Amino acid sequence: MKEFLTKDFLLNTKTARVLYHEAAEKCPIIDYHCHLSPREIYEDIRYDNITQVWLGGDHYKWRLMRSAGVPEKYITGDATDREKFQKYAEVLGKAIGNPLHHWSHLELRRFFGYEGILNKDTAEEVWQCANAKLQSEGYTSRGLIRMSNVDTICTTDDPVDSLEWHEKLAADKTFPVTVLPAWRPDKAMNLEKETYPDYLAQLRKAAGMKIDSFAALIRALKNRLDFFASHGCKLSDHALNYVMYAPATEAEVETIFAKRMDGMMPTAAEEAAFKYAFMTAMAAEYARRGWVMQLHYGCRRDNNPNMFRAMGPDTGFDCVDNFAPSAQTAAFLGALEESGKLPKTILYSLNTNDNAAIDTILGCFQNDTAVGRIQHGSAWWFNDHFDGMSDQLKSLASLGYLAGFVGMLTDSRSFLSYPRHEYFRRILCRIFGEWVEEGFYPEDLDTLKEIVADISYYNAERYFGFDKKKI
Amino acid sequence: MKEFLTKDFLLNTKTARVLYHEAAEKCPIIDYHCHLSPREIYEDIRYDNITQVWLGGDHYKWRLMRSAGVPEKYITGDATDREKFQKYAEVLGKAIGNPLHHWSHLELRRFFGYEGILNKDTAEEVWQCANAKLQSEGYTSRGLIRMSNVDTICTTDDPVDSLEWHEKLAADKTFPVTVLPAWRPDKAMNLEKETYPDYLAQLRKAAGMKIDSFAALIRALKNRLDFFASHGCKLSDHALNYVMYAPATEAEVETIFAKRMDGMMPTAAEEAAFKYAFMTAMAAEYARRGWVMQLHYGCRRDNNPNMFRAMGPDTGFDCVDNFAPSAQTAAFLGALEESGKLPKTILYSLNTNDNAAIDTILGCFQNDTAVGRIQHGSAWWFNDHFDGMSDQLKSLASLGYLAGFVGMLTDSRSFLSYPRHEYFRRILCRIFGEWVEEGFYPEDLDTLKEIVADISYYNAERYFGFDKKKI
Amino acid sequence: MKEFLTKDFLLNTKTARVLYHEAAEKCPIIDYHCHLSPREIYEDIRYDNITQVWLGGDHYKWRLMRSAGVPEKYITGDATDREKFQKYAEVLGKAIGNPLHHWSHLELRRFFGYEGILNKDTAEEVWQCANAKLQSEGYTSRGLIRMSNVDTICTTDDPVDSLEWHEKLAADKTFPVTVLPAWRPDKAMNLEKETYPDYLAQLRKAAGMKIDSFAALIRALKNRLDFFASHGCKLSDHALNYVMYAPATEAEVETIFAKRMDGMMPTAAEEAAFKYAFMTAMAAEYARRGWVMQLHYGCRRDNNPNMFRAMGPDTGFDCVDNFAPSAQTAAFLGALEESGKLPKTILYSLNTNDNAAIDTILGCFQNDTAVGRIQHGSAWWFNDHFDGMSDQLKSLASLGYLAGFVGMLTDSRSFLSYPRHEYFRRILCRIFGEWVEEGFYPEDLDTLKEIVADISYYNAERYFGFDKKKI
Repeated sequence: MKEFLTKDFLLNTKTARVLYHEAAEKCPIIDYHCHLSPREIYEDIRYDNITQVWLGGDHYKWRLMRSAGVPEKYITGDATDREKFQKYAEVLGKAIGNPLHHWSHLELRRFFGYEGILNKDTAEEVWQCANAKLQSEGYTSRGLIRMSNVDTICTTDDPVDSLEWHEKLAADKTFPVTVLPAWRPDKAMNLEKETYPDYLAQLRKAAGMKIDSFAALIRALKNRLDFFASHGCKLSDHALNYVMYAPATEAEVETIFAKRMDGMMPTAAEEAAFKYAFMTAMAAEYARRGWVMQLHYGCRRDNNPNMFRAMGPDTGFDCVDNFAPSAQTAAFLGALEESGKLPKTILYSLNTNDNAAIDTILGCFQNDTAVGRIQHGSAWWFNDHFDGMSDQLKSLASLGYLAGFVGMLTDSRSFLSYPRHEYFRRILCRIFGEWVEEGFYPEDLDTLKEIVADISYYNAERYFGFDKKKI
Repeated sequence: MKEFLTKDFLLNTKTARVLYHEAAEKCPIIDYHCHLSPREIYEDIRYDNITQVWLGGDHYKWRLMRSAGVPEKYITGDATDREKFQKYAEVLGKAIGNPLHHWSHLELRRFFGYEGILNKDTAEEVWQCANAKLQSEGYTSRGLIRMSNVDTICTTDDPVDSLEWHEKLAADKTFPVTVLPAWRPDKAMNLEKETYPDYLAQLRKAAGMKIDSFAALIRALKNRLDFFASHGCKLSDHALNYVMYAPATEAEVETIFAKRMDGMMPTAAEEAAFKYAFMTAMAAEYARRGWVMQLHYGCRRDNNPNMFRAMGPDTGFDCVDNFAPSAQTAAFLGALEESGKLPKTILYSLNTNDNAAIDTILGCFQNDTAVGRIQHGSAWWFNDHFDGMSDQLKSLASLGYLAGFVGMLTDSRSFLSYPRHEYFRRILCRIFGEWVEEGFYPEDLDTLKEIVADISYYNAERYFGFDKKKI
Repeated sequence: MKEFLTKDFLLNTKTARVLYHEAAEKCPIIDYHCHLSPREIYEDIRYDNITQVWLGGDHYKWRLMRSAGVPEKYITGDATDREKFQKYAEVLGKAIGNPLHHWSHLELRRFFGYEGILNKDTAEEVWQCANAKLQSEGYTSRGLIRMSNVDTICTTDDPVDSLEWHEKLAADKTFPVTVLPAWRPDKAMNLEKETYPDYLAQLRKAAGMKIDSFAALIRALKNRLDFFASHGCKLSDHALNYVMYAPATEAEVETIFAKRMDGMMPTAAEEAAFKYAFMTAMAAEYARRGWVMQLHYGCRRDNNPNMFRAMGPDTGFDCVDNFAPSAQTAAFLGALEESGKLPKTILYSLNTNDNAAIDTILGCFQNDTAVGRIQHGSAWWFNDHFDGMSDQLKSLASLGYLAGFVGMLTDSRSFLSYPRHEYFRRILCRIFGEWVEEGFYPEDLDTLKEIVADISYYNAERYFGFDKKKI
């Protein structure tokens, strides 16, 4: 098997091929966590060329180009789109082992029908091929989504968001895909930021109520939670340094809040206490509403001060933070459980060393609320590569109940990222195939197909309980 | 090779098959660390049905069932044994990649001769088959042990234990298996527990001496150590959060102890200082007596407060604790070595990220006291799966001297767990087979068989130096 | 493929064999980090027997022998060289899975033409074979280097070193290999050591200037940096516990220094602040000169107090230190970048759990200064084994741009260690071969050979920019 990225890519056993082509491939996609713009979906936008859709906002690709010594001019600077594409092609051609090499080729094959290899010599050919397609029928934001067999999308939205594009999408009878908001209240939690008071002003306006205390902050957020719920929101998402356990009294938390309102910055201990109180209050709301709580942690952001100043966040300058005491994560979930306020939860750490800690924490809080009430999220961000995904799946299988896993999401800003679901499903089927081939699991294709389809689609459908759009 | 769990399960090369069937398989078992009840061995108990023997006390299985969303009623509740078995069969049938899937089938094959697959459809068949066997001759606690070719068992015993069942077993000429106590003094160390004073009262009674100081506590324990030694005990076992280095003066330790006796709880620093002094004193005793010190760490226990309240400890609510500074572990062993009081030691961390730290710490304290004087214990508890065991073996091989490894133990509460030794030995032979097949190690079967037999049995025999029962 | 360590050792696919034999094998070696003695190179020394060259100073071998229970007498004691060799042969014969088993056989094959297996039975034969060779033409320090196709060597040198042997080597027209110093100023940083004042006295003498302040210390070091630069030095090397971020004012740092000059030892916080200031000052110098900064961390040294007292450092008693907060590493590099003083940098952690953190930190500071401006150093020391090297390569590929990697180094004290480069290159080609065979990367042999040759040789040549000796 020496051909590159064929239809049986990654499927190195007969079992894997059967499972993928007969069970995984046909499942629709529930992309329950991404960073797509609902407005861009609604407006059904179109791109001039592949550089715009591929390189315009993809910090994964920017990082790779910088790592290969490409000048910033050709990455985010004023070089032409054609020049930028050439540089990317040159780098990608030699990016052996990097997931972008696989993702990019999957995208070229699935969306543009290009079956060749992208490198410095073929850049022009790919440029022509892709750009022609991008001007043809169906190559718009909505078209790319429909082409990908997506049935549900959850975007990532701030509590102050008006959700106007979600409303328009919900009302639009011509687009059958369910697009729902997801609640991401990081800005309401991060009181150590300079911009915190400004954010509270926005929140006050959105909620239509005064925010002069921590209790009032939570009241305002409840108001917005109701608003999000009325738009079909079923899950939240938090970016944390680590999942902390730092209990404080109500009075202490109010004092920290008041101090910040007076313009004083919190100490590290105060910050932790405030955030812990915030997370506890949010979790209680999710539990009450039957929402899912997603916790993303293990990341240190914006590490390059010069580039942060020039370009802002989410531009390719983040890294793994290896401080995340599992004892605190377990204590936080334990405290919620004790008070009857632990919602369905998905834990994601950017540090793969946390896999086993997460998978053993899950087991402490499972019950008949749901199959896999507490979940270990699919390999996140940097770990979204062959080894990272394989490790997450094998760790979860070894330490928990893989068959109950809610599976993949894109976490992406791009309309072309859906083949990451394909990549994930192929890896899943590959692992199952190897296990069957080795005699580690029975060659019971019915059960295997059921598990594959559950992880690809049905588990997520049952777990989140989205109200699907009906047209 | 598509048949599930055949006689060549895991043995994917000819070398592996030769090594397993000609060297590993025939070795008896020294189960030097387990949680069997000596009373239940002595009383030669019998089980009514497979639910009792399999699901009655096995928190691994309970966790898996909870993870699959099974209501507690069918796990530890008031459902019938047959109902519980059905639920376990349903979950197990889909527990792809979980070690319980392998362990359960190994147990069905080795003890009950059932060569099929357990799942929702076959549950009744297995129920009948296993229960019939359980009523037949030899299917008692002692019978299951003898069936498994066990020659030595070390239980886990508190210093206050009377060891009466060990005495009876030693005196019983009809049972040729050596059953020895192992010293587990956690309750004498954990002064932060509410129950500490009560425990000291028990210890005072057992040792027949006043315990009004730390020095007196150690004296009382020495008395009990002598008692354990007179019953053939050769090894100890400690459960630690992490292996700490926190030196304090004798006076400081006495003050901490006195404070606790006055009903005041220790600070975190005092707790560490006290435990460090305790461990130092114990280690000195083990060194003097030629005992082995086992250190188990990297675990956070009882994470679910509700379930802890309802069910107590060891019911399936523990997780990996990822705080274990290797610098402190090394400093503890270094301080013992400096004072000439470092015993033979086995280090086990529940956090597999500690593998390399452990394997490099070993190398700092090896000498001609023993082959592998300091050992890296076999993959522990949650890590007792294919990848976990493989990783421990490969890490030890890469960083140390695998041929000197004392090998596997069950750590189990069940009389049916001995196939875990088989699982381990198959994985060991598989790795060796792959290395030979790849040209990484010479195809020198005599040496390979010697190493396999040493790791399976002879290293442990030499390392611990148990006085075997002679009948 | 059952023969041990053949010419296709580790090369399990046709692609791997082509890549190794047609691209990797013929590349010369740039050994940019080692611990060879420039004097021993200059003096072109010869060894009496294989024990002297193999066991005389190799603490890797000593550890292995101690782990197998060999008495110290046969390791570093007064046994005869022949007896020591016998013990090593006995242990090595059973050291399955240990990299020494591979390294030792590679060395026997490459330098002594011995194609058999070393174990207790063949020890005499190997002893005779190797010792005869060692007396033959070309078997001197220089001869062994030339035999290994080495074109550049960087030793490890203290700022106070006179570099006299480097001067003599540079002037010697009969030896075409470039031998350059590398700057290792650990002793000037480690103010917590008892010997710090003595070291400053040496430095004062070497630099010919008073050192009565931190600023003066840095001035003295700049003087020595100029001296090293004039001898062709292009890179530095630091041994750190961890890469810390601990900013303090100039005045605070001067106070810490003054306190130490008054004989008072620093607190832990003062030590960190001082070392951070020291590293910041050094990095600025490297950046200004276009040097490379190497940071080695994650190690706890000299863990066995008794053996340290008897034998000193670097005798086989070191272990992994698992404390290395990636947030501080990122903050240190970020602060340097912000001030325009971040040099090209290579990060090495002894803790392989840090791989992903390192590989994601790299990406935050890459630009067009160099391909792979910030590098993840090859698997270091204990991790220099098959799995360790494979993991480093795969992690770097998954998270960065492997094609820009500067590749292998020996880090060794022995003239026989060059086959570690071969070992590395075979592993690299093996991984590439597997990826091509699996359809993960196109079978484009020209590009693959280019990448292999770059990683084996050309990337290092471009990255370091050594002035090569011209004869």
